[in-house]
Amino acid sequence: MAKIDLHGVFPPITTPFVNGKVAYDKLAFNVEKWSQTGLKGFVVLGSNGEYVSLSEEEKRTVVDTVVQSAGDEMLIIAGTGCESTAETLRLTEDCAKLGAHAALVVTPHYYAGRMGEAALKKHYSEVAGHSPIPILVYNVPKFTHINLAADFVARLSEHPNIVGIKDSSGNVIQLGELLNAVAKDFNVMVGTAGVLFGGLTLGCAGGVLALSNVAPEHCVKIYNLVKQGDFEAARDLQLKILPINQAVTAVYGVPGLKAAMDMLGYFGGDPRLPLMPCSEQERSELKKILQRADLWD
Amino acid sequence: MAKIDLHGVFPPITTPFVNGKVAYDKLAFNVEKWSQTGLKGFVVLGSNGEYVSLSEEEKRTVVDTVVQSAGDEMLIIAGTGCESTAETLRLTEDCAKLGAHAALVVTPHYYAGRMGEAALKKHYSEVAGHSPIPILVYNVPKFTHINLAADFVARLSEHPNIVGIKDSSGNVIQLGELLNAVAKDFNVMVGTAGVLFGGLTLGCAGGVLALSNVAPEHCVKIYNLVKQGDFEAARDLQLKILPINQAVTAVYGVPGLKAAMDMLGYFGGDPRLPLMPCSEQERSELKKILQRADLWD
Amino acid sequence: MAKIDLHGVFPPITTPFVNGKVAYDKLAFNVEKWSQTGLKGFVVLGSNGEYVSLSEEEKRTVVDTVVQSAGDEMLIIAGTGCESTAETLRLTEDCAKLGAHAALVVTPHYYAGRMGEAALKKHYSEVAGHSPIPILVYNVPKFTHINLAADFVARLSEHPNIVGIKDSSGNVIQLGELLNAVAKDFNVMVGTAGVLFGGLTLGCAGGVLALSNVAPEHCVKIYNLVKQGDFEAARDLQLKILPINQAVTAVYGVPGLKAAMDMLGYFGGDPRLPLMPCSEQERSELKKILQRADLWD
Amino acid sequence: MAKIDLHGVFPPITTPFVNGKVAYDKLAFNVEKWSQTGLKGFVVLGSNGEYVSLSEEEKRTVVDTVVQSAGDEMLIIAGTGCESTAETLRLTEDCAKLGAHAALVVTPHYYAGRMGEAALKKHYSEVAGHSPIPILVYNVPKFTHINLAADFVARLSEHPNIVGIKDSSGNVIQLGELLNAVAKDFNVMVGTAGVLFGGLTLGCAGGVLALSNVAPEHCVKIYNLVKQGDFEAARDLQLKILPINQAVTAVYGVPGLKAAMDMLGYFGGDPRLPLMPCSEQERSELKKILQRADLWD
Repeated sequence: MAKIDLHGVFPPITTPFVNGKVAYDKLAFNVEKWSQTGLKGFVVLGSNGEYVSLSEEEKRTVVDTVVQSAGDEMLIIAGTGCESTAETLRLTEDCAKLGAHAALVVTPHYYAGRMGEAALKKHYSEVAGHSPIPILVYNVPKFTHINLAADFVARLSEHPNIVGIKDSSGNVIQLGELLNAVAKDFNVMVGTAGVLFGGLTLGCAGGVLALSNVAPEHCVKIYNLVKQGDFEAARDLQLKILPINQAVTAVYGVPGLKAAMDMLGYFGGDPRLPLMPCSEQERSELKKILQRADLWD
Repeated sequence: MAKIDLHGVFPPITTPFVNGKVAYDKLAFNVEKWSQTGLKGFVVLGSNGEYVSLSEEEKRTVVDTVVQSAGDEMLIIAGTGCESTAETLRLTEDCAKLGAHAALVVTPHYYAGRMGEAALKKHYSEVAGHSPIPILVYNVPKFTHINLAADFVARLSEHPNIVGIKDSSGNVIQLGELLNAVAKDFNVMVGTAGVLFGGLTLGCAGGVLALSNVAPEHCVKIYNLVKQGDFEAARDLQLKILPINQAVTAVYGVPGLKAAMDMLGYFGGDPRLPLMPCSEQERSELKKILQRADLWD
Repeated sequence: MAKIDLHGVFPPITTPFVNGKVAYDKLAFNVEKWSQTGLKGFVVLGSNGEYVSLSEEEKRTVVDTVVQSAGDEMLIIAGTGCESTAETLRLTEDCAKLGAHAALVVTPHYYAGRMGEAALKKHYSEVAGHSPIPILVYNVPKFTHINLAADFVARLSEHPNIVGIKDSSGNVIQLGELLNAVAKDFNVMVGTAGVLFGGLTLGCAGGVLALSNVAPEHCVKIYNLVKQGDFEAARDLQLKILPINQAVTAVYGVPGLKAAMDMLGYFGGDPRLPLMPCSEQERSELKKILQRADLWD
Repeated sequence: MAKIDLHGVFPPITTPFVNGKVAYDKLAFNVEKWSQTGLKGFVVLGSNGEYVSLSEEEKRTVVDTVVQSAGDEMLIIAGTGCESTAETLRLTEDCAKLGAHAALVVTPHYYAGRMGEAALKKHYSEVAGHSPIPILVYNVPKFTHINLAADFVARLSEHPNIVGIKDSSGNVIQLGELLNAVAKDFNVMVGTAGVLFGGLTLGCAGGVLALSNVAPEHCVKIYNLVKQGDFEAARDLQLKILPINQAVTAVYGVPGLKAAMDMLGYFGGDPRLPLMPCSEQERSELKKILQRADLWD
């Protein structure tokens, strides 16, 4: 049986807050606006969604809101990874009931020193084996301080219910090794727009890109240009978006991503403490970066 | 007003599970047994308590169980750090109501790149400013990948409701810098038995030591010997416990700590997945290490 | 005045030893054999040339040998970086006299904590300002534990005698940032074959690739295919060489590179101690990897 | 046969430069001044001696100068580690002929990824097996990015001509493990004054301390106080010197150490480029730190 097909671009969407509470109406507003940009679907409750700062109840309502607001053709992937295997499975089942089409499961990482391949294999097998929806592995060493090697991911990919990986390492050597190691229908998803062109030209299925919260059209265009074989135009666009992507990921993080959303017609708002909103000076820097890339005037 | 006095030894106690469920009776059994060993109190819901794998409800019941099982003279410190400031404060308030005397607040760390001093200052000030019980800062770079520098901790220590730090860096240079930087009544607690002797001889108030789950008498003895000025005897004991401590922390982690507890008359049991129990070979290695230190025969 | 043009592929060549002495005749043999493969020139005394284990006298004789053995059309780049600025300049002048066309200067790194931008700017400016031949910056964090950020390299690139960079970070995001930051005639050279396709499609001038010691034709072919716009064929070849490249760089290092050379008709031989030659088992693994990529039968 | 006894304090002395040339007369001046402070001897050509920036000829003359200037009772240890085993041995033999009593051999580190225990065992065995003088292992992860585990050092210590280790990790857990693992006559030398008190109270033989370039009397006093059993006085002095030690090692490095020497009556002078001398502001900060510790007025 072929695995679910994730070719396309997905934003790992932010969670809007007003006065410290999740603003579900703002979330619906963003989802509707994003839905007109050519995106394939949404990743909810990822790192950019501040999933670590949401209660279980909030997580479920966020997923529900996105499922209700998005068009039927949109694929909804819910971030359901928790530190414990049991809690991860419970949340995955909840999200499946709410209508999520797949789950993105981050590597448990607090006890990184004990998260060897046996432990991680057990974790992913347990979750995938009992989950009613397909599972994507989420490799994000920047946050977890664990990196999943390509050959280990290949062993995970043999499970019929493990259908892909979001690799946010930014390492195209590793993307190449992944593509060499897995079957064609396993979805290798580029996890950062910094290597979108690099990953797609190697053969990745698509991207789950923080940048597509603020510049979905540009990300979709790079995707389409590569599919059409217009590598030169895709490359030029890739080089153009690079500074914005660095700004809204590496440099300013989630607060920067939200500030940029505010500048570009989405609802960004403040992150939850202890993440602090961008300072005036950071916003001013960000504005200049957006202007230089013609994203804001 | 002088700050609460934490001179003495505290185990950051493990959370027992049976068939994946918290075994509150086993927890009470352990607490009663530990209570006869000269410990000053207990740290509940720390890293060795697998706090990241417990639900909020379980956390509250664990604290309640320990408060009920421990003698009145024992100080109860609850680990209440969560990724978000609001959730940390909520849990701190809950634990205060349940009878905890102080709260241990780990540095939020998922978004480590944005956890600069301003963000962490805000986090700790918010929690300490609203908490009904005093706050200890928990610095554990092994798990959080963030280290709090001594001069930053000194600035935190000016808050009247921030009363100490558990420094688990294992770095006695940093312990010395902390002692140089803070007031006498700020409790600098050694966070790992590997530097118990080293920290106490420098002037630390006490220790919060994983090892004191399995060898409380030895840890208390080192504490008492240093207080009595018998440095040579303390040093000899320190060198003797060193291999056990490395085994139940650096090498085998929480699963090793629990396996050693089982060997020494406490209830250890299995950790929650994805932490895997020690293998037979690891147990056998562990047994040899305990035997070499005369802790098991 | 336009900077020297380094478009093409260069191997950072190994230094052959027999009984612990440099085997200049084997070196000449290799150079002659490589010269028939479409390479643009040679990098002598790089990391793969074990420059840190050669005396000054040996370094000069190695450069002399390569200059004499290579055809006149080949560009010779000598690795002249030493820890001190003065010694680097002295060796650069010596190599220029011997006929090297450019010098590759690794970041000084022993005192990494003091190698801030001011110190590195001073170092490169001093060397470039006095060198009779153009200078390439050599960024190899794997060995130096220092990474040069793109904006800093851009500032270095303003010096008329600093003409390019070998970036061995393997990070295509950084390659993109470099291309965005420097002038068109500044040679951004891909420093590892793992990102050859990725770097060239972004616009890099060429590559300085350990792999081209053993598979020069494949590297040159990827270069030519990208220049011709046949990205699909280039990509397929890139994925094919990836496992070999990982083997002769990340996994087995210089000893693996030399062992592979021996298998493929070049003289590899043993590295200098403390680098140990590949074990029989490592050779056997390596052989399988070469076979799977049709490089050896 | 018992190993050489290194109980006492040794400064890893700086190398003075005037106009970029080694100033042997200044070196002799410093050595004579240091000789009146109770030091046990000198470590020449260590990291603080900028050994990586000296030519072989300069290295020999530096050792010769120190041997000639120091009193007969002083032990001279020469830093002879180079990247290649053969060059290390050659320099060790040269230094032995010049009168050095022992050699300090840093771990080769450029190819850190290949410096496994087999390679390092081979390196140290080769050097120790052929050296006419005893060998100390030099573990300095800050500069080499390699750490030697205690059990590996214990295996090295079985060689009759390997007589000690300078452990500059600053990690007293590791010092304890070393003391547990080696024979009584193997010299475990504390490698940084930040853990002088901590290491000596555990049982280390002595210290090789950058700080003793500028504050030899204080270091010697801590050593003597611990030997006399006056731990409280030793501890107070340890806490007092801590900020100076951090300044002349971690914060300002060799340039700071040399600047402090100038302030305290020794000849410090400028380091060799690319190490830059301290700025005026750094000197001013340093002066304040020395003043606060009553080392300068």
